[in-house]
Amino acid sequence: MKSDALFALLRRRGYLWPSAEIYGGAQGLYDYGPLGAALKRRIEEAWAAWFLGLSEDYYLIEPSELLPEAVVRASGHLENFTDPEILCGQCASVFRADTVLEKVRPDGVDGLSPAEIAGLLAEAHPKCPKCGSDRLSVPKPFNMMFGVAFGAQGGERAYLRPETAQSSYLAFDRMCEVGRKALPLGVAVIGRAFRNEIAPRQLLFRMRSFTQAELQIFFDPAGFPVPFETVRSVEIPVLRADRRSEGRSDPARITAGALVGEGGLPEFFVFHLVQLYRFLTSELGLPAASVRFLEKSEKERAFYNRLQFDVEVRLDSLGGYREVGAVHYRGDYDLRRHAEGSGKDLSLATEAGQRVVPHVLEVTLGIDRTLWALADCGLTVAGERTIWKLPSFLAPVEVGIFPLRTKDHGPKAREVYEALRVEGIRAEYDSAGTIGKRYARMDEAGTPFCVTVDGPSIVPGTSETGTFTLRERDSMAQVRLALAPLLERLRAADRLPRPPPVHPNRPAT
Amino acid sequence: MKSDALFALLRRRGYLWPSAEIYGGAQGLYDYGPLGAALKRRIEEAWAAWFLGLSEDYYLIEPSELLPEAVVRASGHLENFTDPEILCGQCASVFRADTVLEKVRPDGVDGLSPAEIAGLLAEAHPKCPKCGSDRLSVPKPFNMMFGVAFGAQGGERAYLRPETAQSSYLAFDRMCEVGRKALPLGVAVIGRAFRNEIAPRQLLFRMRSFTQAELQIFFDPAGFPVPFETVRSVEIPVLRADRRSEGRSDPARITAGALVGEGGLPEFFVFHLVQLYRFLTSELGLPAASVRFLEKSEKERAFYNRLQFDVEVRLDSLGGYREVGAVHYRGDYDLRRHAEGSGKDLSLATEAGQRVVPHVLEVTLGIDRTLWALADCGLTVAGERTIWKLPSFLAPVEVGIFPLRTKDHGPKAREVYEALRVEGIRAEYDSAGTIGKRYARMDEAGTPFCVTVDGPSIVPGTSETGTFTLRERDSMAQVRLALAPLLERLRAADRLPRPPPVHPNRPAT
Repeated sequence: MKSDALFALLRRRGYLWPSAEIYGGAQGLYDYGPLGAALKRRIEEAWAAWFLGLSEDYYLIEPSELLPEAVVRASGHLENFTDPEILCGQCASVFRADTVLEKVRPDGVDGLSPAEIAGLLAEAHPKCPKCGSDRLSVPKPFNMMFGVAFGAQGGERAYLRPETAQSSYLAFDRMCEVGRKALPLGVAVIGRAFRNEIAPRQLLFRMRSFTQAELQIFFDPAGFPVPFETVRSVEIPVLRADRRSEGRSDPARITAGALVGEGGLPEFFVFHLVQLYRFLTSELGLPAASVRFLEKSEKERAFYNRLQFDVEVRLDSLGGYREVGAVHYRGDYDLRRHAEGSGKDLSLATEAGQRVVPHVLEVTLGIDRTLWALADCGLTVAGERTIWKLPSFLAPVEVGIFPLRTKDHGPKAREVYEALRVEGIRAEYDSAGTIGKRYARMDEAGTPFCVTVDGPSIVPGTSETGTFTLRERDSMAQVRLALAPLLERLRAADRLPRPPPVHPNRPAT
Repeated sequence: MKSDALFALLRRRGYLWPSAEIYGGAQGLYDYGPLGAALKRRIEEAWAAWFLGLSEDYYLIEPSELLPEAVVRASGHLENFTDPEILCGQCASVFRADTVLEKVRPDGVDGLSPAEIAGLLAEAHPKCPKCGSDRLSVPKPFNMMFGVAFGAQGGERAYLRPETAQSSYLAFDRMCEVGRKALPLGVAVIGRAFRNEIAPRQLLFRMRSFTQAELQIFFDPAGFPVPFETVRSVEIPVLRADRRSEGRSDPARITAGALVGEGGLPEFFVFHLVQLYRFLTSELGLPAASVRFLEKSEKERAFYNRLQFDVEVRLDSLGGYREVGAVHYRGDYDLRRHAEGSGKDLSLATEAGQRVVPHVLEVTLGIDRTLWALADCGLTVAGERTIWKLPSFLAPVEVGIFPLRTKDHGPKAREVYEALRVEGIRAEYDSAGTIGKRYARMDEAGTPFCVTVDGPSIVPGTSETGTFTLRERDSMAQVRLALAPLLERLRAADRLPRPPPVHPNRPAT
């Protein structure tokens, strides 16, 4: 489906729509409706179950979205969190440099200095993408943080966090106090980040308010033990930087072992690439053939990142691979900067008795982008059916409950509905229209199961009394079940994914 | 417990701490740590289960926190969302008028006009609360919204929403399209709101970023049917405005029926007071004797509110009753203003064939304040035990799993732990210190159950093989259970509260 058609479907079904829609919308802001909010929350819960399941020393916190100025000064965002902005002297439109240079440099301008971008402009003399004039300005840095006056006194500033990561770094010291004071220690945040994008576009892919799920793992650079043998033979699709520099754009499937052996990557890094890959493919159900890791070259990646692998999904709606998350080895940059900025010693005593500033491994996922990728890859038109192949544990509605005829079967269907709701099953009662139409509505919303209450369910004294027809979305298989086995079936399908227990961090207890 | 002691305990256990703590904190901002984030999320889930359980036509959405300027202009916030601010000419401190006038007017200055406040100041001649000078300025209005420059072009403004309610009003039109186009229709938001408080204080009670759970119910003013008979005889503690004007401050216990009959309140309004009361007391476990509804007089309430009842909880830590939520009958103000502001017709065809602008009933709860109230009322010191009497479904950890001796009983305890986690039970494994210390840690964190794996659990061939000691926090009763009944027991205790099914809105289906 093309992007417009997909968005139209999601809007019609109440998954999402532009914020302040009755006012004509607000660029780069979207509201999630009932189904979208439910799906989004399930993705977040699945993420938490999976990544916090990697260790008992990984924790989820919920920090404030506002950061005092001292924090973003120390982190470097006040100075460096900029995009090159170009102004048209004719129509006064503002563009990102990569938009203006799209034709001469389709891969974007990440990693280029302002001087290099100015050079490209001088060479290519692009026209204004909007009015066609040649009166484009030289690029100047535009800070993408939203700043606010903080407090009544005036003068004090705070910023909406441009990434959730900073909140985890700020929490490191307190989390050490609260916990075992031992490494590795993981601090995760699922929450909003805010960026004043020069040109929001591609729907959920460049928003001004968006949700990230980020795990920051603090570890002793002398060693980050992981159970690497459990993943050594797993193949993941990787496009290394050297391969890219040769002009290749197809990923190669390489085993985790080879990425460490011939590839020269650290075990802890590859271990987490595999976990992210498994989460997206085996668990969320994104097609393995559409997912790839892209290594950023030294020039492209943020200067503090020692390694940066983006994870991308190939999307029909957006015409190619799009980044949904990443794994970053950030070194000691973050804690060192905040130790300097705050004057607080953020080093920790290691088992060897030395003090060390922990290094950080960051595993990050864009929740909105993942939701869009699930819609793009999952919504399929098969004949007259439009089906969203969502895994059960993600489905906003896990089961639709239908009385065949409202008058005769409504009361019993209501009973089934209430019995399932009490058990925490996400059930929806629907008696409107033909059974076919009700199936179609559920198919489109991603509901994996439908239960129909019909004559045999309520006629007493037969082998089918008190049984109901369960229909499975993908296979369309139907089976008659009584309430108890029905509940068990739904419960089993609804379990959040968890990685095999690894407990890499703790001594055996 | 006093406020400082309670905060110290919550900070030590990692429930919450000041944001950007290593930088000395940020006034009015707090971060939730692992236990706090988990408890907060459980409160939110319980709220959603309860209030969305009132009708199948009540929905939860997740809108953006940023509102374009046109929205807050139409809603009146740009003009009116102000607090009177007083500046000291000596020390340059800034105060809220109610702080400066605390001694002469302990009930605050809600509802007074700037001129009236200026009159009080001229009469009382208060000193600066900080430096004692008498050089206090006349009060001037200070807008409490955080505004940001929106977009790169300059000139465009957006605001962090000062309440979640506006997002629901904006969504009304789309929600009608998506749904049945019938009233009543409920649109709920659980999320952050932001206020640049002149003087943040009382910890979670006046924050600059805080979480609200708000249900906006749109209804036909000609009738909002509720199953009032189900609540008619329920008594709730109410302090009416007329009683307050007589100088009384103790609530009277009045039945729902009497509040409608002699009290003259609409059934739909009282019905929702009862639901809020039940949620806070029977479900969350706040002591009934500490909760009261306070009616705001015409002068005190916002001018568009036809009725406003705050719900308050008496807190030792803050020295008296504090507001945690409210029920507001807002009339047609909100939709009328947004219809005017956006030019979009927000009226709906009623069954009688007329077009009507729906009225709004708002049920709102402060999640941070509720969390604090649960800590204040629930944390009790009994001899050497500090116990947090949290209901099971709210507890961040539902069950602690202890091996009696790690070496002998650790592997079996791990098995039990993993088996429960797979089933979605919030279990924590703890093998550190004596059993007594482990119980104490769990008691303080609000964990309702502990399971100990000991000799009989693993010695084969006895009646106790494969059974474990379950200890209940409040009764301290112990019982031996095998894994399957243990799981059932934990599951039953963990169910989120739901109101009895009412379905007031729909024709019988």
